[in-house]
Amino acid sequence: VRDAIERDQIGLSAGRTREAAIVVSDVGEFALIDRILARVWRGGGEKVVVAPGDDATVLATEGARVVASTDLLVDGVHFRRDWSTATDIGHRAAAANLADIAAMGATPIGLLVGLGLPGEVELEWVDGLADGLRDECSAAGALIVGGDVVRSPTITVSATAIGTTHGQPVLRSGARAGDVVVVAGRIGFAAAGLALLQAGQLEHPLADAHRRPQVAYAAALRLAELGATSMIDVSDGLVADLRHVATASGVRVELTRDDLPLDAALVDAGLAIGVDPLTWVAGGGDDHAFVATLPPDAALRAVARVADLPEPVPFAQIGRVVTGSGVVFIDGDAPQAHGHAHFS
Amino acid sequence: VRDAIERDQIGLSAGRTREAAIVVSDVGEFALIDRILARVWRGGGEKVVVAPGDDATVLATEGARVVASTDLLVDGVHFRRDWSTATDIGHRAAAANLADIAAMGATPIGLLVGLGLPGEVELEWVDGLADGLRDECSAAGALIVGGDVVRSPTITVSATAIGTTHGQPVLRSGARAGDVVVVAGRIGFAAAGLALLQAGQLEHPLADAHRRPQVAYAAALRLAELGATSMIDVSDGLVADLRHVATASGVRVELTRDDLPLDAALVDAGLAIGVDPLTWVAGGGDDHAFVATLPPDAALRAVARVADLPEPVPFAQIGRVVTGSGVVFIDGDAPQAHGHAHFS
Repeated sequence: VRDAIERDQIGLSAGRTREAAIVVSDVGEFALIDRILARVWRGGGEKVVVAPGDDATVLATEGARVVASTDLLVDGVHFRRDWSTATDIGHRAAAANLADIAAMGATPIGLLVGLGLPGEVELEWVDGLADGLRDECSAAGALIVGGDVVRSPTITVSATAIGTTHGQPVLRSGARAGDVVVVAGRIGFAAAGLALLQAGQLEHPLADAHRRPQVAYAAALRLAELGATSMIDVSDGLVADLRHVATASGVRVELTRDDLPLDAALVDAGLAIGVDPLTWVAGGGDDHAFVATLPPDAALRAVARVADLPEPVPFAQIGRVVTGSGVVFIDGDAPQAHGHAHFS
Repeated sequence: VRDAIERDQIGLSAGRTREAAIVVSDVGEFALIDRILARVWRGGGEKVVVAPGDDATVLATEGARVVASTDLLVDGVHFRRDWSTATDIGHRAAAANLADIAAMGATPIGLLVGLGLPGEVELEWVDGLADGLRDECSAAGALIVGGDVVRSPTITVSATAIGTTHGQPVLRSGARAGDVVVVAGRIGFAAAGLALLQAGQLEHPLADAHRRPQVAYAAALRLAELGATSMIDVSDGLVADLRHVATASGVRVELTRDDLPLDAALVDAGLAIGVDPLTWVAGGGDDHAFVATLPPDAALRAVARVADLPEPVPFAQIGRVVTGSGVVFIDGDAPQAHGHAHFS
């Protein structure tokens, strides 16, 4: 009875038909958790001492340091259900967190997920979300290791990634004058995709870059092994995130416009909707590319080691670290001086 | 401009006056994070290798196993801002997670917090929330070690607790026939407080038990040291949570009505609003009392060891474990056969 009342009060989202689909409020909390666990739980291996289902999950770390990061994604703020499938959103939520672990030079091992769901959400949508979370974890070598499901008027996905490192974590504060600045992974694609979606081009191939980032987790670990002095994943925008590095390290970052990686697909998209595509590369977040600083000899080795990965990863040297402060372009104006602010 | 529009669209909550209070959308994401960090960050000590502010936090575990648990609390579902202060809500959000870590026999070390906030929330409210999160962590010997702040139409608090154990984690599945069932910590108080709030008695002293649980973290660790064969923190209700233990362990739990701890304050409150107070003890969640099973000799030692803690902790032997299945009362009907369902 209570479920029926609740469903009636919340009503259906405009423009969505439901017919006989099973929705969240048709099943209880425990049944929903069981359903999600059946999709995401892949067996623990030796790293999971106690699997989800007890009060907490227990992970073995063999003396390593534990690295942890958390993010919230909110319907209508961080994703739109008319632009992205549930599976896309699962990928994005997991990637945002797992990339933070990799940016520390640590190996992601597990993800805990909290889901806030209105009663009228279809179970099929929840299944898709679980699939995306699970598959993005697989791509990073991690497992879903815990979670919580609650009722909420707003679809909310919280994710906390846990990783381990036996070495020194790679911080934002380690860049030194003389280092070279490199970027590994696609950059500018998610921002281009978002711009295309905003322009109504939902079917454009680049729109998928917003829906589902392709994160170069393995490249981040290679850069750490090769002696990256600092590293960050680009989530606020290349320039904005490098400014975090410059500030934390007490250095100046000099970037070269002509060295920014600019894929032909971005140039075409920029022409199509009248935007300088370099603004996407310099200012766009959400690709979770890894920007690192390395001594010049290590940067040279990195070119070969990243090219050697099983999956090809875009890689470019884009600037250098000097004494001073701030982030500047040495061959022209900045394509865009600020990243996007998540909050306000 | 965007902030102003947003604030105007969301409007103010009914019955709340704001005058010149500073609200969330008046400040940027980074300023808000800095403000919260200034309240919650207490310095890391030796367990925090890298403090919040980088891509992720790094914790040292010295070869221990890592225990992790996550929860979401949602405005209007898990808390009401007209019933609880922001500080109360911070305490509850942290306690729900930290208790899960202690129920594994592990020592809580850190909490990561994700906040989803509408733009019109007053900064003073966010300050209070941060204070409650910080102080509940202190009570459990843990630190706030990371977080995220995002915009959301619904106030949402996600919390992920991390702990460590060098011993075997205490599971739900370890209860054995012949064990004694004990409960440490207040039980039934939060449910009584909720009933009083629902009855409009906002000033009743017991209402505070709903607002801010008093969790006996240290008692849980003592029970683990003494050889608890199973343990769980009561969040769904004593009987419902013991049913999880009975099912996971493949045993039957026999409870004695007359041995359930029933504080005089609960009896008085029950008389005042016409409720059998034993239903609060048997069916109420959210006190986060710890229910454990131990061999009889260990249970005897536990009485003395729990009484020996710096802060007094209510402690009672309430039943025993036998062969069979389910949870039954051997001296009368169950006060309430089901716990409350969080979700639907």
